[in-house]
Amino acid sequence: MLSLSRLGEKGLIRRIARRVRVDSAVIRGIGDDCAVLKPPLGKYLLFASDMLVEGVHFRRTADPAAIGWKALAVNVSDIAAMGGVPLHAVISLGLPNGTPVRFVDRIYKGLTRCAARFGLNLVGGDTDRSARIVIDVAILGEVERNRVVCRSGARAGDHLLVTGRLGGSLKSGRHLEFTPRLREARAIGAKAPIHAMIDLSDGLGPDLVRLCEASGVGAVIEAERVPRRPGCSLGQALTDGEDFELLMAVAPPAADHLLAWARRRRNLPCGLTAIGRIVRRPKGTPVKVVDSSGGRLPVSLAGFQHF
Amino acid sequence: MLSLSRLGEKGLIRRIARRVRVDSAVIRGIGDDCAVLKPPLGKYLLFASDMLVEGVHFRRTADPAAIGWKALAVNVSDIAAMGGVPLHAVISLGLPNGTPVRFVDRIYKGLTRCAARFGLNLVGGDTDRSARIVIDVAILGEVERNRVVCRSGARAGDHLLVTGRLGGSLKSGRHLEFTPRLREARAIGAKAPIHAMIDLSDGLGPDLVRLCEASGVGAVIEAERVPRRPGCSLGQALTDGEDFELLMAVAPPAADHLLAWARRRRNLPCGLTAIGRIVRRPKGTPVKVVDSSGGRLPVSLAGFQHF
Repeated sequence: MLSLSRLGEKGLIRRIARRVRVDSAVIRGIGDDCAVLKPPLGKYLLFASDMLVEGVHFRRTADPAAIGWKALAVNVSDIAAMGGVPLHAVISLGLPNGTPVRFVDRIYKGLTRCAARFGLNLVGGDTDRSARIVIDVAILGEVERNRVVCRSGARAGDHLLVTGRLGGSLKSGRHLEFTPRLREARAIGAKAPIHAMIDLSDGLGPDLVRLCEASGVGAVIEAERVPRRPGCSLGQALTDGEDFELLMAVAPPAADHLLAWARRRRNLPCGLTAIGRIVRRPKGTPVKVVDSSGGRLPVSLAGFQHF
Repeated sequence: MLSLSRLGEKGLIRRIARRVRVDSAVIRGIGDDCAVLKPPLGKYLLFASDMLVEGVHFRRTADPAAIGWKALAVNVSDIAAMGGVPLHAVISLGLPNGTPVRFVDRIYKGLTRCAARFGLNLVGGDTDRSARIVIDVAILGEVERNRVVCRSGARAGDHLLVTGRLGGSLKSGRHLEFTPRLREARAIGAKAPIHAMIDLSDGLGPDLVRLCEASGVGAVIEAERVPRRPGCSLGQALTDGEDFELLMAVAPPAADHLLAWARRRRNLPCGLTAIGRIVRRPKGTPVKVVDSSGGRLPVSLAGFQHF
């Protein structure tokens, strides 16, 4: 079995470069000190990074193609959450000595599959020795100036809408093969103005708290409206995390318009659900979960904490 | 002592965001799913990433401010090697649980010091739990379309010039506090056309081999011309690595012009030295080291290998 120690870093980079296809925005891709790119015209750039660490975001026994897919998909999800389109990515990969080349090939299989699916170029990065597998992706995207959606634009009275269904992503293994809601975010953004948006990585509860804090508002979730994955409790739907669905705040008339549009299944196969409202910033905790009679439910919204 | 577990990820991000200053190209910086940036007009984008791993690029006992400085400086060096100017960076940081917040503050002290020195904005990133410290920086820069310098443009007959002096960077600790040759690369590029350039991260020998392979040429180094750091042997100057000086190929008349200009100390305080020539691609190994009588020296050019 060919190991990295025999192939060498240079051999590895050459091997990767051969497998990667790029479009005409790439003047120079993998193999130089930097990639050289044509900038988007008349739009804003989006720039983010997301790191996956063995033992935290995946186990070494996971399919490496799934690890590669996830590493890029979480970044595409960040671009989707801003209303934008992904363009280019660079990949930093830390690998234990003696890693079989087949393992790296499979990681790149997942990366290139995700890149092809969402129309983006892999243009560079770094490979290093590391006791544990680490994969960090930085992504560049673009967004029309009047289509940028931040976390901070939610206003009291907005409806809260969420794509798909929530809960059980880690347990079911879905977190390794999820589809970022890029197409959905673009379609929704073309239909109606979105005031604020966030992708659900830590869980509906903690991520809604984030959106509220960024916007200086509060929110009320109606428990029985939260769309759950089969077999998931409310608690799981609120705090399991890694759903990578989109949560957005939209003014009431636009929300009605969007919900009617989304009811035609072919417009939005994943579905769109109204789960509550943005309210003025309350004194205490910003997010309240209520039952159908409006009574407050004593649920914890604390999701996964890295530290 | 305040630890990360008490501060939490959200507290950490808020703490970081408070310390970071950005310029008017940043529409939205740290704290959203992506940074939102104005793209450079009429120029190319440069995009790269470089990862540092504890135990490989630094020890846990190193000054964390130096780790932060180095993590950004190696990326600035990549931008310099393309002839460009750095604009924005995102930082992915993996930290062991229980890391004192003071340690992270010091890392960011180094990062922000380097960002301020080279005029770039820290606009986002990711923080994660990780058994070992990992810091990956992705950098965005810009370069005038007619000023991009790749590794692949060297031509037979070009002179090989190198900035500064080589060797002993790891042993002396200089690798943790080096100054990327950004100002120097811009000044040299404004004076004369550079055919090809690379920053010396793995050592003059291995990096020159890379430049030759990318350009489809060979090279001859004159041993006694290689500028060495005090106390360093030729072998150390050729293969120690982490010098982060710039190696460039320049046509003979332009090289003479540059060398005369660089002899005025205030133009280029680090110095510029002609160390050899680009030749047509030879059959065997692309780089030859010769003594003053032109006899080939039996030196190994293999530098640090990650795998």
